Amino acid sequence: MKKVVLGFSGGLDTSYCVKYLTEEKGYEVHSVIVNTGGFSDEELVEIEKRAYNLGVKSHKTVNAVRSYYDSVIKYLIFGNVLKNNTYPLSVSAERMSQALAIGEYVREVGADAVAHGSTGAGNDQVRFDMIFHIMIPGVEIITPIRDMKLSREEEISYLKSKGVEMNFEKAAYSINKGMWGTSVGGKETLTSNGFLPEEAWPTQLTKEGTEQVKLKFVKGELTGVNDKTFAHPSEAIQYLQTIAGPFAIGRDIHVGDTIIGIKGRVGFEAAAPVIILKAHHALEKHVLTKWQLSWKDQLASFYGNWMHEGQIMDPVMRDIEAFLQHSQENVTGDVFVTLQPYRFQVTGIESAYDLMSSKFGKYGEMNNGWSGEDVRGFSKIFGNQTMIWHQVTESAKGGK
Amino acid sequence: MKKVVLGFSGGLDTSYCVKYLTEEKGYEVHSVIVNTGGFSDEELVEIEKRAYNLGVKSHKTVNAVRSYYDSVIKYLIFGNVLKNNTYPLSVSAERMSQALAIGEYVREVGADAVAHGSTGAGNDQVRFDMIFHIMIPGVEIITPIRDMKLSREEEISYLKSKGVEMNFEKAAYSINKGMWGTSVGGKETLTSNGFLPEEAWPTQLTKEGTEQVKLKFVKGELTGVNDKTFAHPSEAIQYLQTIAGPFAIGRDIHVGDTIIGIKGRVGFEAAAPVIILKAHHALEKHVLTKWQLSWKDQLASFYGNWMHEGQIMDPVMRDIEAFLQHSQENVTGDVFVTLQPYRFQVTGIESAYDLMSSKFGKYGEMNNGWSGEDVRGFSKIFGNQTMIWHQVTESAKGGK
Amino acid sequence: MKKVVLGFSGGLDTSYCVKYLTEEKGYEVHSVIVNTGGFSDEELVEIEKRAYNLGVKSHKTVNAVRSYYDSVIKYLIFGNVLKNNTYPLSVSAERMSQALAIGEYVREVGADAVAHGSTGAGNDQVRFDMIFHIMIPGVEIITPIRDMKLSREEEISYLKSKGVEMNFEKAAYSINKGMWGTSVGGKETLTSNGFLPEEAWPTQLTKEGTEQVKLKFVKGELTGVNDKTFAHPSEAIQYLQTIAGPFAIGRDIHVGDTIIGIKGRVGFEAAAPVIILKAHHALEKHVLTKWQLSWKDQLASFYGNWMHEGQIMDPVMRDIEAFLQHSQENVTGDVFVTLQPYRFQVTGIESAYDLMSSKFGKYGEMNNGWSGEDVRGFSKIFGNQTMIWHQVTESAKGGK
Amino acid sequence: MKKVVLGFSGGLDTSYCVKYLTEEKGYEVHSVIVNTGGFSDEELVEIEKRAYNLGVKSHKTVNAVRSYYDSVIKYLIFGNVLKNNTYPLSVSAERMSQALAIGEYVREVGADAVAHGSTGAGNDQVRFDMIFHIMIPGVEIITPIRDMKLSREEEISYLKSKGVEMNFEKAAYSINKGMWGTSVGGKETLTSNGFLPEEAWPTQLTKEGTEQVKLKFVKGELTGVNDKTFAHPSEAIQYLQTIAGPFAIGRDIHVGDTIIGIKGRVGFEAAAPVIILKAHHALEKHVLTKWQLSWKDQLASFYGNWMHEGQIMDPVMRDIEAFLQHSQENVTGDVFVTLQPYRFQVTGIESAYDLMSSKFGKYGEMNNGWSGEDVRGFSKIFGNQTMIWHQVTESAKGGK
Repeated sequence: MKKVVLGFSGGLDTSYCVKYLTEEKGYEVHSVIVNTGGFSDEELVEIEKRAYNLGVKSHKTVNAVRSYYDSVIKYLIFGNVLKNNTYPLSVSAERMSQALAIGEYVREVGADAVAHGSTGAGNDQVRFDMIFHIMIPGVEIITPIRDMKLSREEEISYLKSKGVEMNFEKAAYSINKGMWGTSVGGKETLTSNGFLPEEAWPTQLTKEGTEQVKLKFVKGELTGVNDKTFAHPSEAIQYLQTIAGPFAIGRDIHVGDTIIGIKGRVGFEAAAPVIILKAHHALEKHVLTKWQLSWKDQLASFYGNWMHEGQIMDPVMRDIEAFLQHSQENVTGDVFVTLQPYRFQVTGIESAYDLMSSKFGKYGEMNNGWSGEDVRGFSKIFGNQTMIWHQVTESAKGGK
Repeated sequence: MKKVVLGFSGGLDTSYCVKYLTEEKGYEVHSVIVNTGGFSDEELVEIEKRAYNLGVKSHKTVNAVRSYYDSVIKYLIFGNVLKNNTYPLSVSAERMSQALAIGEYVREVGADAVAHGSTGAGNDQVRFDMIFHIMIPGVEIITPIRDMKLSREEEISYLKSKGVEMNFEKAAYSINKGMWGTSVGGKETLTSNGFLPEEAWPTQLTKEGTEQVKLKFVKGELTGVNDKTFAHPSEAIQYLQTIAGPFAIGRDIHVGDTIIGIKGRVGFEAAAPVIILKAHHALEKHVLTKWQLSWKDQLASFYGNWMHEGQIMDPVMRDIEAFLQHSQENVTGDVFVTLQPYRFQVTGIESAYDLMSSKFGKYGEMNNGWSGEDVRGFSKIFGNQTMIWHQVTESAKGGK
Repeated sequence: MKKVVLGFSGGLDTSYCVKYLTEEKGYEVHSVIVNTGGFSDEELVEIEKRAYNLGVKSHKTVNAVRSYYDSVIKYLIFGNVLKNNTYPLSVSAERMSQALAIGEYVREVGADAVAHGSTGAGNDQVRFDMIFHIMIPGVEIITPIRDMKLSREEEISYLKSKGVEMNFEKAAYSINKGMWGTSVGGKETLTSNGFLPEEAWPTQLTKEGTEQVKLKFVKGELTGVNDKTFAHPSEAIQYLQTIAGPFAIGRDIHVGDTIIGIKGRVGFEAAAPVIILKAHHALEKHVLTKWQLSWKDQLASFYGNWMHEGQIMDPVMRDIEAFLQHSQENVTGDVFVTLQPYRFQVTGIESAYDLMSSKFGKYGEMNNGWSGEDVRGFSKIFGNQTMIWHQVTESAKGGK
Repeated sequence: MKKVVLGFSGGLDTSYCVKYLTEEKGYEVHSVIVNTGGFSDEELVEIEKRAYNLGVKSHKTVNAVRSYYDSVIKYLIFGNVLKNNTYPLSVSAERMSQALAIGEYVREVGADAVAHGSTGAGNDQVRFDMIFHIMIPGVEIITPIRDMKLSREEEISYLKSKGVEMNFEKAAYSINKGMWGTSVGGKETLTSNGFLPEEAWPTQLTKEGTEQVKLKFVKGELTGVNDKTFAHPSEAIQYLQTIAGPFAIGRDIHVGDTIIGIKGRVGFEAAAPVIILKAHHALEKHVLTKWQLSWKDQLASFYGNWMHEGQIMDPVMRDIEAFLQHSQENVTGDVFVTLQPYRFQVTGIESAYDLMSSKFGKYGEMNNGWSGEDVRGFSKIFGNQTMIWHQVTESAKGGK
């Protein structure tokens, strides 16, 4: 009997896949769910139960919280990655981590095929297809929903015919929750104009007033929040989320290019990610040189886009990570942030590596290290080529 | 008698320069003030009066509001320029426009020298020096405050000795107001940690609740706000400021690299600029292709930094402007923004050039233009090289 | 009867297509050949005759020499484009021009379908497919050779069965000739190690000794060679080829990434293109500023790669062209080149826009425009931030 | 008595400095020469003797051949750095290595001052000044030739007055010899038009015919030539130079931007460097992915320019080196090169990491890994956004 590994979330599409692969295709189905921080233990137990009820041969829960941070989120923070200057790549990043874990599991199980529940309309199909092509090139990829162009109604009717009982109601908003943010799609995001209503956001505003937090970074990684330190940065992220989430911070709409060329729009809430990125960037502005900041920006912008397009296994990503890792050598210090309903403000930093150190002259005040005469010479030489260009050009045009 | 053109703001430093250049150096002083939107007519009249009282031979007020927009701000908007992802270059951009206008005036007057009141501690000295070196290379540049390393006290005492009467008190916060934002410096910005207090901000919060505005862009330029249209985009900017300013929107602190290599920190408020930049960018995300967005980002980031460093006359800036101008061909449409105290949200756009047009398939829904099978083929080819790389690398490492 | 436009070269693949489309599919075939400088008038007449013999309804010859230059080559020269620092994009650029002309002809004829003879193994299939999808999205694309995976032998046997008589022998080297270079593929280029033998090169060495040529550029375009001027730069290119080709200049092997992810290797000879690119670049090094050179490089590198991948219709290409065009404002002057068997040397330039003009100081000699003291100040400020970084870092590490 | 460390080459300028610093300024002079491969042991002994004759307190010879390779040349090879696509940075790179070694020696000696013989007209003054400012910020920098604007004649007359006997004749061509190439300046390079005559080149053509060489790279470093292996890559470079130099390969003229803004022109010969760079790049084209090649290019171009401008101590250089080092993981294999008088040709490579491996399909032949149908799907999706852009734009323009 041929074995298939199926990425399983417990939703309609992947429930359909279990039944279809088992009963219509005669596969032995090994379902797997990769938790990147979006599921509680209770939810994971519930999903496992559902998998067995649907008839899988085995079900596996992979805890990828730490590996997700170590292989993906860490570099997104190092790079201050906000796609199109807005979106922390909440879903795109998570899919990479999940696809890699599923590919690993396929190898472990020695499966003949791998299946995912993607439709033919989104980014995820490309991400899963591509990671599987690269990691496990001999293994067949099965995508029933995409291949048979199934509608929701067709899936429900098939499952009902097989005696499956589950909640078939469609939620008003589709939610994807993970450690690096939660996406929210609904009727407002299907058009170019419209913002999600208050009730659509999974995390509701429950705090008021002002709260101060101190974020402690060591070589670019968040190791502490206020006076707590953590065994692993993923825990610091999750802890910050419990503090900042109730302020309803980090809500926005991302408009961007899908891998398949069309434009898409999606809401997201990502309190901890957005605060961490802005705090980390603020610290970097104090401790890195001008060209470190500039090259980090360029590399990270590509890195984020290429990850978004599913290309995490391109070896260029490892090269960029080597750059980013090295750039964090001095990114150590505390960042101070003020939280308020719907917004936050980075108010300052403190670091032994602060280049704004008063030892070397304050901006706007006279310095010991150099004189006005030095700057006068600098200005002359710094503008020299452009001065010559203007002289030569005027003279050439005049001479015509 | 030798003529000097002096950039004159009416403040302590440039008042000192008038007296010093006239009485100690024997120059005929022609003062000039370039208004880029920061001064009211009353203030300008006041400044003129002061100039004549101090003894200038002539005083000139240059209205540079439109030329400032046409030659600088327009491209900052096209490029969505926020230095270090924060600062709209409020002061840096303005200095360029002022230095160019002063250089022009030096040519007009046929002056032997040009003077500015910069100290030896900031960016402005480089900007003025450099533009003058380039535009008017034969003309001597005089900078009394920098050259004599004068303290505030020394300047005051000299002016008093000459019988000058003016307000010699130092303000708690130094303010520089212009059409593209107002900078605010004070004791909190002299260190790495500390945010400006509520009372330091020139524009106080006086509105509450929620207000909707519609911004109309034509080929990247703001031509209308709500139902008003304007003769020139500079007027639209100023009008939007009157609406959004009282919400205390666009306050932040910029931390960045000065031209002379040290780090500096400065507060700014820039309601209209920040709203316009975010609205314009949102529209672009809908109407430009992925690589247009990407290259605009890279070019604009350089453009903003190079302008910040005073290099507006480098011909590469004209080449980049040609790119930016061309990229705006389809950037036409309305952008909807919600204003609230201290924050705003772009909520959507409407444009005939919207690539998210439902005619070509909606993200997340099935499309007519292509099939799941097409995407399957795409994924295979899109990941092909990385697949080969992993196969070859494994085989090479295994074979060792 | 349904109409199909067929790109026709007179070779085996497209001859097969005529017969197949007419006799098996019942199409009315309108063949078209786009001459981008690779065919003589005699060859074109011969190809037309063959088309009618095979049974096309109509045959059209498009002379694209000037439009190829105007829309493609001009910008490759402006950008000094050599893919992977080697290859002038001889074939890639030509395919763009051909696909655009065929798409135009499809519109003119009002055809229901468009056919090309590409196999499933190369770059050209993607280039033709993609341009047609973009230009004429409703029109069916037919690729018989690719779709039926036909071997050479199968095509020959089919054509023989239809009574077609032509030269069915396979050449030892496959040649693609065009105005911007000639590609040469053979058994040596199918592996990673091996150079094409002397006899494989279409243009044999027939000149010896040394010859001087002067290339005249006006705003980046080649308008004259020695004392001849030309009505259109395409003629100057072709004239230079007659001078330089017999020196066997510009032979090399390009190793690069195909659009479909595999690596490919191809020989090429391109005397005029390589000389023009190096001469143009030499002139630019004298007349452009440092940052103009730098940004041109970055943009042109992308431009060449994106064109290579068939993406000429992405609007970002127009934006980049606007940059490149503007950057050529001062690229006017003469370039002196020495030709010898197998090699050439740019020996100098002469231009009214030369920034090395002796009026502004010679390198290595003392200058009037600035002093050693100015440079001393410059050096101090130019290294300021890095000095501070080292001081702060040492102090922070010491303090730990 | 105050100590000064003087960079000493034995030439006119630094001989002057010894006498001047000792006799006019009362310094205890500690001369130092840093050999980066340009001097023979005999020459070094000769220079030492001259230093003592002129009256130095001590003289030190630093052998920097290996450290020069390890800290500079290695990364120039990794990055295939040719400034302005021509020049291997022969002199610029060497100066960095020399300045760093002198700075180190200043620390060792505990000197109060450091002196160099630069004039006020070139790049070297900035490079030395800046490295010293950064490394040894408290130490005074003395530059007698620049500060006193001394002419050659003045220096000679002073030295003669002090009884110094040396060869005071000026060579027709000024030569700077080092491991990474030799620069040649003369009357032809002082203008924009003119190539150096045969006799000006230090290495004359003494070989004829054709010679094959095999270069062995391991992780990007040259470890063997033909069948010889070397203890250190610097030896492989020097060995290759003995083979290729007599073919008079690698001669050219570099036109470029000096740090002080003017354009400069200099001849150079660099047989081994140019061959190694081209061979290394050829190998990389076979073993790196498309985006690795692209990002290496961009980073290396900046790296080379920033090194040229003396900024080797900016920490961004270390970050880029981390990227470059990581990118070399698979750059292992043999490269085959044919040498002939004045030219060479890379003819192929052999590597276990070759992505052109026949196992995964040959370019231009049918492949097993994917089908024509896959490519058809790919083309459709790959051009999707541009297709939509053209449809939307046409419709918007039509609708107006």
